[in-house]
Amino acid sequence: MTSAPASSRDTIDLPGLAGSLLERLRTERIRVHAITNAAAQTFTANLLLAAGGIPSLTVAPEEVPAFTSRSGALLVNLGTLDRDRREAIPQAIATARDHATPWVLDPVFVEASPPRLEFARSCLAGGPCVLRCNAGEFAALAGEDATPGSVQAFANSHATVVALTGAVDLITDGTRLIRIENGHPLMGYVTAMGCAGTALVAAFTALHDNPLEAAAAALLVTGIAGEIAARGANGPGTFQTTFLDALFNLSPATLVAHGKIS
Amino acid sequence: MTSAPASSRDTIDLPGLAGSLLERLRTERIRVHAITNAAAQTFTANLLLAAGGIPSLTVAPEEVPAFTSRSGALLVNLGTLDRDRREAIPQAIATARDHATPWVLDPVFVEASPPRLEFARSCLAGGPCVLRCNAGEFAALAGEDATPGSVQAFANSHATVVALTGAVDLITDGTRLIRIENGHPLMGYVTAMGCAGTALVAAFTALHDNPLEAAAAALLVTGIAGEIAARGANGPGTFQTTFLDALFNLSPATLVAHGKIS
Amino acid sequence: MTSAPASSRDTIDLPGLAGSLLERLRTERIRVHAITNAAAQTFTANLLLAAGGIPSLTVAPEEVPAFTSRSGALLVNLGTLDRDRREAIPQAIATARDHATPWVLDPVFVEASPPRLEFARSCLAGGPCVLRCNAGEFAALAGEDATPGSVQAFANSHATVVALTGAVDLITDGTRLIRIENGHPLMGYVTAMGCAGTALVAAFTALHDNPLEAAAAALLVTGIAGEIAARGANGPGTFQTTFLDALFNLSPATLVAHGKIS
Repeated sequence: MTSAPASSRDTIDLPGLAGSLLERLRTERIRVHAITNAAAQTFTANLLLAAGGIPSLTVAPEEVPAFTSRSGALLVNLGTLDRDRREAIPQAIATARDHATPWVLDPVFVEASPPRLEFARSCLAGGPCVLRCNAGEFAALAGEDATPGSVQAFANSHATVVALTGAVDLITDGTRLIRIENGHPLMGYVTAMGCAGTALVAAFTALHDNPLEAAAAALLVTGIAGEIAARGANGPGTFQTTFLDALFNLSPATLVAHGKIS
Repeated sequence: MTSAPASSRDTIDLPGLAGSLLERLRTERIRVHAITNAAAQTFTANLLLAAGGIPSLTVAPEEVPAFTSRSGALLVNLGTLDRDRREAIPQAIATARDHATPWVLDPVFVEASPPRLEFARSCLAGGPCVLRCNAGEFAALAGEDATPGSVQAFANSHATVVALTGAVDLITDGTRLIRIENGHPLMGYVTAMGCAGTALVAAFTALHDNPLEAAAAALLVTGIAGEIAARGANGPGTFQTTFLDALFNLSPATLVAHGKIS
Repeated sequence: MTSAPASSRDTIDLPGLAGSLLERLRTERIRVHAITNAAAQTFTANLLLAAGGIPSLTVAPEEVPAFTSRSGALLVNLGTLDRDRREAIPQAIATARDHATPWVLDPVFVEASPPRLEFARSCLAGGPCVLRCNAGEFAALAGEDATPGSVQAFANSHATVVALTGAVDLITDGTRLIRIENGHPLMGYVTAMGCAGTALVAAFTALHDNPLEAAAAALLVTGIAGEIAARGANGPGTFQTTFLDALFNLSPATLVAHGKIS
């Protein structure tokens, strides 16, 4: 029975965990400081509010330490890497490390810009608890295509959780690997949907000390909210609004009923 | 009868004033220059447009004097205090003073960041006609908790109107005190709802030379628009859209019917 | 019959072209790099996504060459001309010229700010394939009021297409002149509607080598989407969402049925 703890972790009730974290976020109202790209700031704040959290968003280098140190988690998104953000991000990461605050890295479009790739690598060296990326971003960072094996190897060698998002989300800490098949194609037609979802990953890491499970729970929540939202939408415009409504109204029971996890 | 003017001002018909200012805003299309935080810019512009005003938003220090001098009012919001904004705000305030243009200060999250608090104090010294803040922001600025007495004392000593927003809004110029109980909890789940509402305060100060009454009228309008919007919303996503619709369609008669003022 | 080509170009089937470009955008998923103002970034990205394109938005000077060189078109919008944008825009334009990538200039509010006017003139000298502006912006740039004659003369002397938007859009390359009467008044109550529409102009210039026709086709698409969206909207809030839905669902047949072109 010495392997029982590991075994029970492998068969965690992810929808149950997700429901419990969502309810705790609504009552504990965790603060998340999000240094995110200009096109994502508003939707990220609205997603966090709809899920129960409290966002702050300043990218001013002078202010970032104070905001990070009062937050439960930090999100670092590299989508628009202007001067203030380039200066603020290392300070935010250093503050998060000093306070043992979990932080999450989202290296948006890192494949498109050599200076961004270099910057992302220095962020990675700072030890995010979760790296969220898509296949193109992973390939740029890892120097090889994303496969279950390469992603696990990368997570292992960088001592982080990789949450590789796509039609199927793949989340791994290098040992365990969770697949989530929830979500809806309309999510790809709303800017910053992925960026904003990563803010929920950050919020959940503040509430649950296993970042693999926290990340998977957050992706499950956003994927299921997307499925519910799509039923009431006529396109990507109304979908933005029904998505926030669905997240705001999401119940633990709905998570159990809809989760597609393997 | 010498006290009649004061007395009649004390019993001002606020819903009537609010309806009249809203109709004037729609026809006179007042320009408001808003130096506001990155997450609030879009919603602030959309709220001003829905109410009938014309927003401009640049934070470039070189451009702020020209934009301020052609506007009817200025909004200064400290929500994301990056380099451009730190440089632009004093120039905008100086321009507003030179042109006797009313301007409104919104010291967002000033309790969270010592450099922001210092910056907010220097802004306050520039003489805003209205300071809009919540209880936490007030406490940081005033060094004491917000009570009707402390807020009136602060308004008096700073020769400004304080519009303290919360479940009940409290607006005072140090002498008169107006309470407004309109609004809806969903307003707290949309980012920048308060920031954007302060832009309407600014617009109304351009149209009415009593800033206490202008501020109260603007908060009445946003609170009632929020109540109407909530009826047609399923959560904070649809609420954003029904709120702008409600503001766009709001009639003076509706303001009279819904106002909860004391 | 030597004049046949010119004549057939004069009687181009614009709704047919617009439908074909829209369908190609959805399948070829053209990348557009948009250096646009802070209030327009999110809506611009969402409009491009709804139309089928792939937006990128960074304004970091270090990154702009890499993003521009991988894009099919570039949009330069001067709406919030802060330090990063002032530095990034000339680099983006130079990159576009090096790669023969079409680019479009939108000199928002150029009449309001002398440094912006000077900056806009230096951009114009860089040779945009389309200049999109309204009557006030045109007058500031041209030094005379916008009339069909002055706009044609300006297009001629600057060797560009001018797309003058208003109740009636007027598009000219200095020789041919197209008028489009589609659109809806609610479009004026949504911030960045025009700015975002110009991103579609940019996307279409990547797909069609006649910028006059590309610009006219894009304005036809946004105008008709606006008309359809207005039917399902109660005001400018819901209109934002129904507009993106209408654009997402727009069919070539609808373009043919609704186009008001002369």
